[in-house]
Amino acid sequence: MFKQLQADLATDHHIHFNDLKLLEEALTQANYINEHPGYKGGDYQRLEFLGDAVMQQSTAVYLFKRFPNWDEGRLTELRISMVQTRAFAALSRELHLDRYVQLGRGEELSGARNRDSLLEDLWEAFIGALFLDQGQEVVMNFLEEMMFVKIDEGFYDQFVDYKSKLQEYLQRHGTVKIAYTKLDEQAISNNEQVFTIQVSVDGKPLATGEGKSTKDAEKMAARKAYQSLMNN
Amino acid sequence: MFKQLQADLATDHHIHFNDLKLLEEALTQANYINEHPGYKGGDYQRLEFLGDAVMQQSTAVYLFKRFPNWDEGRLTELRISMVQTRAFAALSRELHLDRYVQLGRGEELSGARNRDSLLEDLWEAFIGALFLDQGQEVVMNFLEEMMFVKIDEGFYDQFVDYKSKLQEYLQRHGTVKIAYTKLDEQAISNNEQVFTIQVSVDGKPLATGEGKSTKDAEKMAARKAYQSLMNN
Repeated sequence: MFKQLQADLATDHHIHFNDLKLLEEALTQANYINEHPGYKGGDYQRLEFLGDAVMQQSTAVYLFKRFPNWDEGRLTELRISMVQTRAFAALSRELHLDRYVQLGRGEELSGARNRDSLLEDLWEAFIGALFLDQGQEVVMNFLEEMMFVKIDEGFYDQFVDYKSKLQEYLQRHGTVKIAYTKLDEQAISNNEQVFTIQVSVDGKPLATGEGKSTKDAEKMAARKAYQSLMNN
Repeated sequence: MFKQLQADLATDHHIHFNDLKLLEEALTQANYINEHPGYKGGDYQRLEFLGDAVMQQSTAVYLFKRFPNWDEGRLTELRISMVQTRAFAALSRELHLDRYVQLGRGEELSGARNRDSLLEDLWEAFIGALFLDQGQEVVMNFLEEMMFVKIDEGFYDQFVDYKSKLQEYLQRHGTVKIAYTKLDEQAISNNEQVFTIQVSVDGKPLATGEGKSTKDAEKMAARKAYQSLMNN
């Protein structure tokens, strides 16, 4: 089974993973081992310990070099939105680690295979294994291709609460009035509408956002306002 | 001034730090810059962001390889006792970073130069600068020599509350009686005594410890008991 993952890594990512045992360890949960006395390796937890730290450093090094003019506050903020459960779970799914993981029966029945917290652990364990098998440079290249390109696609924005951030920033010197106003609402099909929302502070417009619900449109407006304030 | 630190790094650690500006940035606080318009570099905060992550990974990689039979719980526990304020402050003092830091006047007057939280930041910033100037391998060798050797000297034990750990471990299946009993008390000079304390669980002796106060002797007994239980 892990030969398939090894082959996919070679085809899709040009990574020639050497140690299949290590790959299997990164994708094996403790209770699986208890139930399969024939399995001779370890579970993923030590590799998760390692991979967690490798993810922290790799992300910090990338952001430090990529954004030479950002202060540590902005760097930390972006790192937090990247190095967290939902982002890692999405990466695990993209690599199909959810298909490969060897679970105990109880975990399988309780739906762990689709649980973000398990998929986060698997991502970290996989990165720990990749670091041991291939070294830091391969890990960095792999993360650039899988994870860091998503910064420019706005992927990590979904994990940031921009309405709170905007409010915090605007009220840093005291209370101001922040309003979200609906400017437009258009049907694009029988079931779908697009809303346009404007966010303003003390009556002065900051940005507009669109979305398929007023909530989504507000979030988009808040993100655009926050990011344009940060870039000035 | 930073030429002296550069020279000390070469003499004491065989590190030939290239970029003096980077070394100065790692040891310059934001308010110093405000008060010295002639200073052209940045403050240490971006380097601290970087060094914090480098410390996490370097320590995790070292512990993972050094202790192949430890589970992730023990690895995490030791890492926590190493990667923290008081340990980093001690390392900063050992490298005399407290002498070099350029502080704003207010911070100087408030005693920041001897404050652990500042010295922790400086250690991380210095490691960030070392990583940029010399790369991962030099950082690892430097940490091995400055920091990881201290594991075997028991240096990080002082940051661990072994009495609580022992109690937690012994009571994991329910309440037991843990007792600390004084076995001996000897004067070693006019002002100094050595106490010997035994720790027992439900009347069964686990370990003895010595110390210049009963509190120290208890801590030592708890550490010896905890470590021998962990190694069995």
